[in-house]
Amino acid sequence: MSVTAFLAALVAILAGAKLFGELAERVRQPAVLGELVAGAILGPSVLGWVDPHAEPIHLLAELGVLILLFEIGLETDLRRLLRVGSASAAVATVGVLLPLGGGYALGRVLGFEPLLALFLGAALTATSVGITGRVLTDLGRLQEPESQVVLGAAVIDDILGLVVLAVVAGLAEGSGMSGGAVALLVAKAFGFVAVALVVGRLAAGWLLRLVDRLRVRGALFVFAFLFALVLAVVAEAVGSAFIVGAFAAGLLLAETGRAPEVEGEFRAVALILVPIFFVSVGAVMDVRLLNPLNAENREILLVTLALTAVAVVTKMLAGYAPFWMKLQKHVIGVGMVPRGEVGLIFAQVGLAGGVLAIAEYNAVTLMVMATTFLAPLGLRALWKRRPGPRVPPTGVAELVAET
Amino acid sequence: MSVTAFLAALVAILAGAKLFGELAERVRQPAVLGELVAGAILGPSVLGWVDPHAEPIHLLAELGVLILLFEIGLETDLRRLLRVGSASAAVATVGVLLPLGGGYALGRVLGFEPLLALFLGAALTATSVGITGRVLTDLGRLQEPESQVVLGAAVIDDILGLVVLAVVAGLAEGSGMSGGAVALLVAKAFGFVAVALVVGRLAAGWLLRLVDRLRVRGALFVFAFLFALVLAVVAEAVGSAFIVGAFAAGLLLAETGRAPEVEGEFRAVALILVPIFFVSVGAVMDVRLLNPLNAENREILLVTLALTAVAVVTKMLAGYAPFWMKLQKHVIGVGMVPRGEVGLIFAQVGLAGGVLAIAEYNAVTLMVMATTFLAPLGLRALWKRRPGPRVPPTGVAELVAET
Repeated sequence: MSVTAFLAALVAILAGAKLFGELAERVRQPAVLGELVAGAILGPSVLGWVDPHAEPIHLLAELGVLILLFEIGLETDLRRLLRVGSASAAVATVGVLLPLGGGYALGRVLGFEPLLALFLGAALTATSVGITGRVLTDLGRLQEPESQVVLGAAVIDDILGLVVLAVVAGLAEGSGMSGGAVALLVAKAFGFVAVALVVGRLAAGWLLRLVDRLRVRGALFVFAFLFALVLAVVAEAVGSAFIVGAFAAGLLLAETGRAPEVEGEFRAVALILVPIFFVSVGAVMDVRLLNPLNAENREILLVTLALTAVAVVTKMLAGYAPFWMKLQKHVIGVGMVPRGEVGLIFAQVGLAGGVLAIAEYNAVTLMVMATTFLAPLGLRALWKRRPGPRVPPTGVAELVAET
Repeated sequence: MSVTAFLAALVAILAGAKLFGELAERVRQPAVLGELVAGAILGPSVLGWVDPHAEPIHLLAELGVLILLFEIGLETDLRRLLRVGSASAAVATVGVLLPLGGGYALGRVLGFEPLLALFLGAALTATSVGITGRVLTDLGRLQEPESQVVLGAAVIDDILGLVVLAVVAGLAEGSGMSGGAVALLVAKAFGFVAVALVVGRLAAGWLLRLVDRLRVRGALFVFAFLFALVLAVVAEAVGSAFIVGAFAAGLLLAETGRAPEVEGEFRAVALILVPIFFVSVGAVMDVRLLNPLNAENREILLVTLALTAVAVVTKMLAGYAPFWMKLQKHVIGVGMVPRGEVGLIFAQVGLAGGVLAIAEYNAVTLMVMATTFLAPLGLRALWKRRPGPRVPPTGVAELVAET
């Protein structure tokens, strides 16, 4: 990729994201919906201006979702998150088991092999914390108790989804996994979060004192950025997800009380990088598959419809899991609906391992897209946009820029 | 490149840049010098942690220098730049002709073929506007008249350098270039700047009124970013340099009076991206070539020494070209000394075209590095760091972050 091609791709992504984000806002929808549509149009299946699989674009998109999760962590109060922790855990656990079972059952009803049916179920498990968090931010509802439950549950089932992925990928390669190995995976994935929150808390204070003694420009901001990157790399290395590491880094920095000093800077970086992620997600979609006049598409579309129905209903039910809490359960359920990266990774692993044929691969991809589009529409319908500032005022720079 | 490898490379680059930048500041040198040293250590010839030729790193580095030039444009007053325009033009013209002649003469004295000697001269022509601008910013001297002359001259001779490159590359391929073709190249390269400044000025006001009507978050900042990218792509397309387009975009936005609203955001993006450029420049250096105990290196080192002497003396002399102006001419000369990207591009084209052998290629690369290191040291010695704020206060976010 030449420098000119790279710059031109960035122009297409950012201009498209802002144009369609603006259109979405004008019809009172979250901007992220517009960014996904922009991606679908810019992607290989329509204009072909943006290739989401080109390495530099892909890596910047991943950096974008990392920054997004870090920002969401920065705006999250750990104590408030833990206060609804039991509810989150219940939503996450039920929200993994029901879709796994539902997808498996659907696959068997459709006459698929058990392994293929298991793959379909597994691909339904993980809520996309990135899309959910972004939609809640767009609606100005990130601080509601329901949002906190959804956020906690989405982080937990992102981790559970990775464990399911490891197990199912092992099965696809023909090598089963012992119960002990699975338990170790779960322990490592969750252990990382626990260790990060304890060790990170001690380290953050000590590191900040060191950073405050530096003379070099922007030391605190660059340190915060490095903190997010390092926790992301460590999380990935121990078998958790890199976005979980970035979220933990944001939580920890918020705990130190220094977050307001860097939120303006992160907002600026996020404004450039985050749309690259959502446009890339949209660009993966092959919109030609949606054409019902093409006979080949009809079977895929029917499987997609059934899969999407299972995906929506099972996560909606999971929303009712914390029966002991007084919360808007249907809002929680809708908030859990969007599937994202992890679902697409399942589709790719399944295709590469020969378990999924291209038809089922496309059905899983379309299901991910459908849930991603349905959730913002649903949340928007259930939760009117909050009057006043759309997002809590976080950065001085943004206040200046928006006035 | 995996996501983890990419994130780890970013950690190495940013941590190294800030650590060595801090050390440089502690010994009262510009931070950019520390970033170059960090790159040399992290690069393939020592630790091998950062590969400056890996596509994602290379593209982010280019985006970094684009942002740097845009920022420098934002902080530059077009009228003040034009007021010293005649001095800049004189410094640029003499600063291209003298090194070209000097390098050719040196090559012939050393017994090289005429074409090879011409290549050596051509590689000496273009001052690196990025390195010069960054050093002046680090020293808090960007607004001095001498700095404005250097900045204008560096932009002009970056354009001239590209013309020289096109001519010499044509000669290397065995196809000469007619005088008319050369004139067309020059006209296009400078014509872009003229047209951009006139048309861009009209367009910027109209576009800003449009942007002000948008509801989407961060519209002005993203628009400014897109403006820089688009002008960079257009500049590259018409045969000028993409950094010239970015600089012009900064100048134009500064003219509209809206720059203060976005400088904080650009500062944040620059804090992440700009060090990637300087660490990459440092990482290209093969420090093993500096070992005089290795007999093979001695010839290269001697050629490098002679080449660097010509590079420094000829640009120093060019500083005295605007004889009719009352300026610190020796400061201008030292400011013109650093060669950068364009010099390295000459080396690569010469190597690929078979004109330069690996020994001469290394000598040119080492000369670029030597001038890049000498200039900050020289400017620092001539111009003490200005007391008070190191940089003019531009962004609210930075003021908050630094207090």
